[in-house]
Amino acid sequence: MHFVSPSFTIIGFGAFGKLLARLLAPMGSIFIYDRRPEVSAEVEGTGFQLISHPGEIRSSIVIMAVPLQGLTDSLLEVGPHLGAGQVVMDVCSVKEEPARLMQDLLPQDVEIIACHPMFGPASAANGIAGLQVVFYPLRGRTWRRIAAILRNLHLTVSIMTAEEHDRHAALSQGLMHLIARAILPLGEPPAVRTRSHDLLCEAIEMVAHDSPEVFETITRGNRYMAEVRSKLIRSLEDVSG
Amino acid sequence: MHFVSPSFTIIGFGAFGKLLARLLAPMGSIFIYDRRPEVSAEVEGTGFQLISHPGEIRSSIVIMAVPLQGLTDSLLEVGPHLGAGQVVMDVCSVKEEPARLMQDLLPQDVEIIACHPMFGPASAANGIAGLQVVFYPLRGRTWRRIAAILRNLHLTVSIMTAEEHDRHAALSQGLMHLIARAILPLGEPPAVRTRSHDLLCEAIEMVAHDSPEVFETITRGNRYMAEVRSKLIRSLEDVSG
Repeated sequence: MHFVSPSFTIIGFGAFGKLLARLLAPMGSIFIYDRRPEVSAEVEGTGFQLISHPGEIRSSIVIMAVPLQGLTDSLLEVGPHLGAGQVVMDVCSVKEEPARLMQDLLPQDVEIIACHPMFGPASAANGIAGLQVVFYPLRGRTWRRIAAILRNLHLTVSIMTAEEHDRHAALSQGLMHLIARAILPLGEPPAVRTRSHDLLCEAIEMVAHDSPEVFETITRGNRYMAEVRSKLIRSLEDVSG
Repeated sequence: MHFVSPSFTIIGFGAFGKLLARLLAPMGSIFIYDRRPEVSAEVEGTGFQLISHPGEIRSSIVIMAVPLQGLTDSLLEVGPHLGAGQVVMDVCSVKEEPARLMQDLLPQDVEIIACHPMFGPASAANGIAGLQVVFYPLRGRTWRRIAAILRNLHLTVSIMTAEEHDRHAALSQGLMHLIARAILPLGEPPAVRTRSHDLLCEAIEMVAHDSPEVFETITRGNRYMAEVRSKLIRSLEDVSG
């Protein structure tokens, strides 16, 4: 596949789909496919083009910006309309299950990248330079060109398998979400503060507004989380004896 | 008590005593009392004056920069040499016990401030502007002048009781130390990272090198920590069901 100016179809115009559209707009045309009724008003005036049927997808790059919980349905809906010359990427917070689903449900001549941008609307609020995108190239070679596009946006592209991703992500993103959900019920930050606790609050704030679907995917969709969670609980029981 | 240029005697030239001496040096003369043999070499060339016996303490302000575990012994040693016109402050990470000890063990004519600077060598590494110092004034009125000195160093002085301090500190400093000690055994930061997890690591790094005495004081010397710890464990058990 060769493209000078790529075009992107983003499936799903939720919080992350909107962020992606904005970030990728300087790199090529942006098409949106999302059947929810409110989306047509949301797309208006953005310069993105809303398409009304997956049969209209012509882009070289198709990004499934849907939660893991909806990925199967979306692949079943969109997949039959895709073919040679197109590459499909997901953006789910775990990689083992989406990788399996995309390989099972997409036509054989469609290229596939299991992908995880390690940021969201909150963490990208002050720019994305230096942030990480994980790629697990599953089919085809176009991923190299897409990685180059992302590097042009000053993102770091890390290549690893779905298993490596999920094992490592459990210890960073997964751990952070667990900590945040455990601390939030303790209430407002107290009147006595330290610099380290301020940083902790800032970190929690970044993930506190992620959707329930994202939290569910990160904690229950990752088979390495159970161990991280029990180790954390054991450590807490140990440290203060 | 009136002083134009105050002098400070710092009891204990450990990590925090050294930081205090450096921070307070622009505000007045600094005397050090610490009988450990290595201290005389450490003080050399600093401009601070090492004194060899508590009978030599003449400063208007005496700061007990010793761990909670050594506070009783230090007060018993230094207290009998102090009197009217002098104010004693501690810097322990909890306030209920030091407040009680200072009231019990210091002569009646000595002024007392239970004090907690909410920072240490790591969190003060990039400056102290905006950082917090908690004051619980126990005897005398000199605390107002000392608070003014600290505000001149761009510190924020918060007045509260020992009980208020310990209850709030459990939810910030105590919580942060618990989290850090629970996460450190999980090992090195993984190859997949998020901005929020990077912040969490930065926060952990700030407290990871605190002494075992500091950790012991913050977690076991604070009677509100047991509840914070059990709530945290319960939340962790809940969130991932």
